[in-house]
Amino acid sequence: MRPAPQLDLPLALDRAAATPLHAQLAGALRRAVLDGHLPAGARLPSTRRAATEVGLASATVLAAYEQLTGEGYLESRHGAGTFVSHHLGADSTAPAPPRRAPQDDGAAATGSGTRAVDLRPGRPDTRRLVDPAWRAAWRSASSQVPSWEPPPLGLPALREQVAAHLRVARGVPARAEDVVITAGADEGLALVAHALELRDVVVEDPGYPSARRALRRLGVALHPVPVDEHGLVVDALPEPRAGGAGAGAVLVTPSHQYPLGGVLPLARRLELLAWARARGAVVVEDDYDSEFRYGAAPLPALAGLDGDSVVHLGTLSKVLTPWLRTGYLLVPPRLREAFAAVRHDLGTPVSGVQQQALATYLAGGSLRRHVARARRDCAHRRAHLLASLASQPHLRAAETSAGLHSVVVLPEGTDAADVVRRVAERGYLLAALADYAVERRDLPPAVVLGYADASLADLSGAVTAVGAACADQRLPVTPATTPTAAASSTVPRAVQPRSRSRPGG
Amino acid sequence: MRPAPQLDLPLALDRAAATPLHAQLAGALRRAVLDGHLPAGARLPSTRRAATEVGLASATVLAAYEQLTGEGYLESRHGAGTFVSHHLGADSTAPAPPRRAPQDDGAAATGSGTRAVDLRPGRPDTRRLVDPAWRAAWRSASSQVPSWEPPPLGLPALREQVAAHLRVARGVPARAEDVVITAGADEGLALVAHALELRDVVVEDPGYPSARRALRRLGVALHPVPVDEHGLVVDALPEPRAGGAGAGAVLVTPSHQYPLGGVLPLARRLELLAWARARGAVVVEDDYDSEFRYGAAPLPALAGLDGDSVVHLGTLSKVLTPWLRTGYLLVPPRLREAFAAVRHDLGTPVSGVQQQALATYLAGGSLRRHVARARRDCAHRRAHLLASLASQPHLRAAETSAGLHSVVVLPEGTDAADVVRRVAERGYLLAALADYAVERRDLPPAVVLGYADASLADLSGAVTAVGAACADQRLPVTPATTPTAAASSTVPRAVQPRSRSRPGG
Repeated sequence: MRPAPQLDLPLALDRAAATPLHAQLAGALRRAVLDGHLPAGARLPSTRRAATEVGLASATVLAAYEQLTGEGYLESRHGAGTFVSHHLGADSTAPAPPRRAPQDDGAAATGSGTRAVDLRPGRPDTRRLVDPAWRAAWRSASSQVPSWEPPPLGLPALREQVAAHLRVARGVPARAEDVVITAGADEGLALVAHALELRDVVVEDPGYPSARRALRRLGVALHPVPVDEHGLVVDALPEPRAGGAGAGAVLVTPSHQYPLGGVLPLARRLELLAWARARGAVVVEDDYDSEFRYGAAPLPALAGLDGDSVVHLGTLSKVLTPWLRTGYLLVPPRLREAFAAVRHDLGTPVSGVQQQALATYLAGGSLRRHVARARRDCAHRRAHLLASLASQPHLRAAETSAGLHSVVVLPEGTDAADVVRRVAERGYLLAALADYAVERRDLPPAVVLGYADASLADLSGAVTAVGAACADQRLPVTPATTPTAAASSTVPRAVQPRSRSRPGG
Repeated sequence: MRPAPQLDLPLALDRAAATPLHAQLAGALRRAVLDGHLPAGARLPSTRRAATEVGLASATVLAAYEQLTGEGYLESRHGAGTFVSHHLGADSTAPAPPRRAPQDDGAAATGSGTRAVDLRPGRPDTRRLVDPAWRAAWRSASSQVPSWEPPPLGLPALREQVAAHLRVARGVPARAEDVVITAGADEGLALVAHALELRDVVVEDPGYPSARRALRRLGVALHPVPVDEHGLVVDALPEPRAGGAGAGAVLVTPSHQYPLGGVLPLARRLELLAWARARGAVVVEDDYDSEFRYGAAPLPALAGLDGDSVVHLGTLSKVLTPWLRTGYLLVPPRLREAFAAVRHDLGTPVSGVQQQALATYLAGGSLRRHVARARRDCAHRRAHLLASLASQPHLRAAETSAGLHSVVVLPEGTDAADVVRRVAERGYLLAALADYAVERRDLPPAVVLGYADASLADLSGAVTAVGAACADQRLPVTPATTPTAAASSTVPRAVQPRSRSRPGG
């Protein structure tokens, strides 16, 4: 009989910390696996034994084991116990089942003749945002107006709150001094481009058009790499080049690929980080809507795996509203000086009143409560959307375990741009999946539909309209209307992806 | 006897417009002079006759004549009447007496060992800003939080308020659709650089270091041109180059040169605009503190002289506070598309809540009232500063008819950097005039002192400290301290111009 395994880990648990104990233990175990301290195939002690060993409750250890199993670090074999996964390493086998998901949404109106319901992605649910805590935060912040500029990297109080949010919600050991407050993810991305003097960036294909527009405007050359149902195809990344400075970056949405919804598996994450290290490149992790998960817990952010190669790009546009234009960066300590130098040169664009209001709002725990409420509301709308789609035999939702939008796959051979046009005539603005492509021409015909800010009636109506538009398209073509030929060129501007449809806002 | 002169102008006065009638009349007369419709030397009708002719009160006509006389367009000859000035044209003779002025100020504290009073320029007076109207504007704005992004060029309500402010306060026929709301003058300048794809910019020497830093960071080559007591030496501008696109820009502070305080005379303004047109260049008019005048009315903004070549760069940092990070641009209609395209690509950084709050605040007339109050307070501090300086026989204030700061000229041969260091040891942070220079080595020894946010006691204390430091420097040097030799290299970082000391904020 083999001796019972022991954890034998250098554990420094901090019971006073904001990070829950199970998350602290999971973090320590994760590091031990990545460091090779716990090799592939190693058996872990039972939760009861481990609990005794580290002085925690069994339930706490169980929570940590379950989290790491979900992330692909551990495997549970029935009757045999818990083991370090064999699937970690250089191969791209996914250790966890692939998950795809939707994103976020909008429900306003743009003018293309008649007023339409805007269901293109990009809008969160703000109906319950203005509450007494929100009002009090703004009242207090607008009453204190000094005569100087806010600090270049952000108000210390807000940086601390963002760091705490990242520790609790995203499993990243974030420190306030590594946080930079931005005027939204757009400004955050521009700041990254300036600080790293980026000339070349790998982008996902399909991915979000507005990030590509911003990078092009800043003189950055784009290198599209395809995405599959697991997210970025890391094997397709360009070979590492010689030479250090300006080695570039890869912009990636690992927790929920935009727009297809894939969750990048752990093995690919490790390969991506290895690629970046070999190349001297930076991974820019756009973590735009990871707070919205329906079921499985999110994988921790990439920034928690490699604090030296990852710039974490976050936003409050999805958890609060893009109306605020506020986001944040988590920057590796070695790069902090470069970011501070850009802000010193270009100035800071983020209002002090707003930073103070948000710091107060977050400090009171209101963000957590608001996200929980919004998540419940969105889950309700998502269930309604899925039920509506189920009633249309020719439509299929791509995986929607997360986010604020859904990719609706149309019957093979359908002209999606024409469907978008026909649905717009019926009063619903959607986006076509093809509009997110860089070079890809092999994407299935699909539309992208945001549901976070939509009414149930609009969701039903839009799904019915999509079904009808697909059916119309299969009717015999009369000489007066030749939708197939005219489709691409006659899509009105208004139904292109919204000008600022960027997920990060 | 000659026939009595007539105005005979195509006058389209609009009694319902926000622009006062005397300003409308002055604008029409100004255009007539510039168009050659009223040639140099032409005699104008008496105010009474003109009033009858155009159907206005005599007092209204008188106000228009006085304004144009102050601006240098008209001359009044005792007993003979009012004439179009002979001084307009290609020569650089100043038609109006030169005026110099101070700027703005700060009164916080930075840490260089002990806590010091920060009197470097850049801070307005915010002590009376938070009033019921301010609170109400923020309360209302923070209660309406949509789920979408603010419009790329700004909220229409705020753009309209800014246009009205420019019409009334700066004599510019501004339209809301030509206004762009910015995240402060820094962001505004970066937006200009992107929209015009600037590669070369003429800057004033001395001028503000932070604008130069921002332009350099954006890859723009700087071409310093000297400034004299009237402002930019237009004759020293580089020769017009052949070729259209990317012909560059000149960044100028015509209403109140930063930091020296000169007011660019009308003749130079016209030459500058002619230079820009010949070169296909754009004049970027940084109008950072023109609201603060003590006595003479300000010259109208350059943008009112040439709506096609001038981009007007404004800020709320001086009239409200740099804490807000909000400013604006007035853009020629032919360039509007280029600005919209940059915002489309890079996103908008200005919070919707804040834009809405400012629109409400401005619409209620509160900005005008606040500026009037702040101007009175600043005039009081300025008078106290001048009185303090008068008590120090070796110190001299440069002209201070405007702004929120003063340039204090030290005795010839004084090492100003050493004075700044010595004064910092006594608890007052100032800037040295030399820190604003690009290539200039011929500037007088001087320090720059902001007074808008300072207490009277601090102003007296700082002046006494400057006087004492100058006197100390003239003492025999002991081997232990060799201030002259060590001065430049030992000035602590904290007393360099404040990192974001940019006037526009």
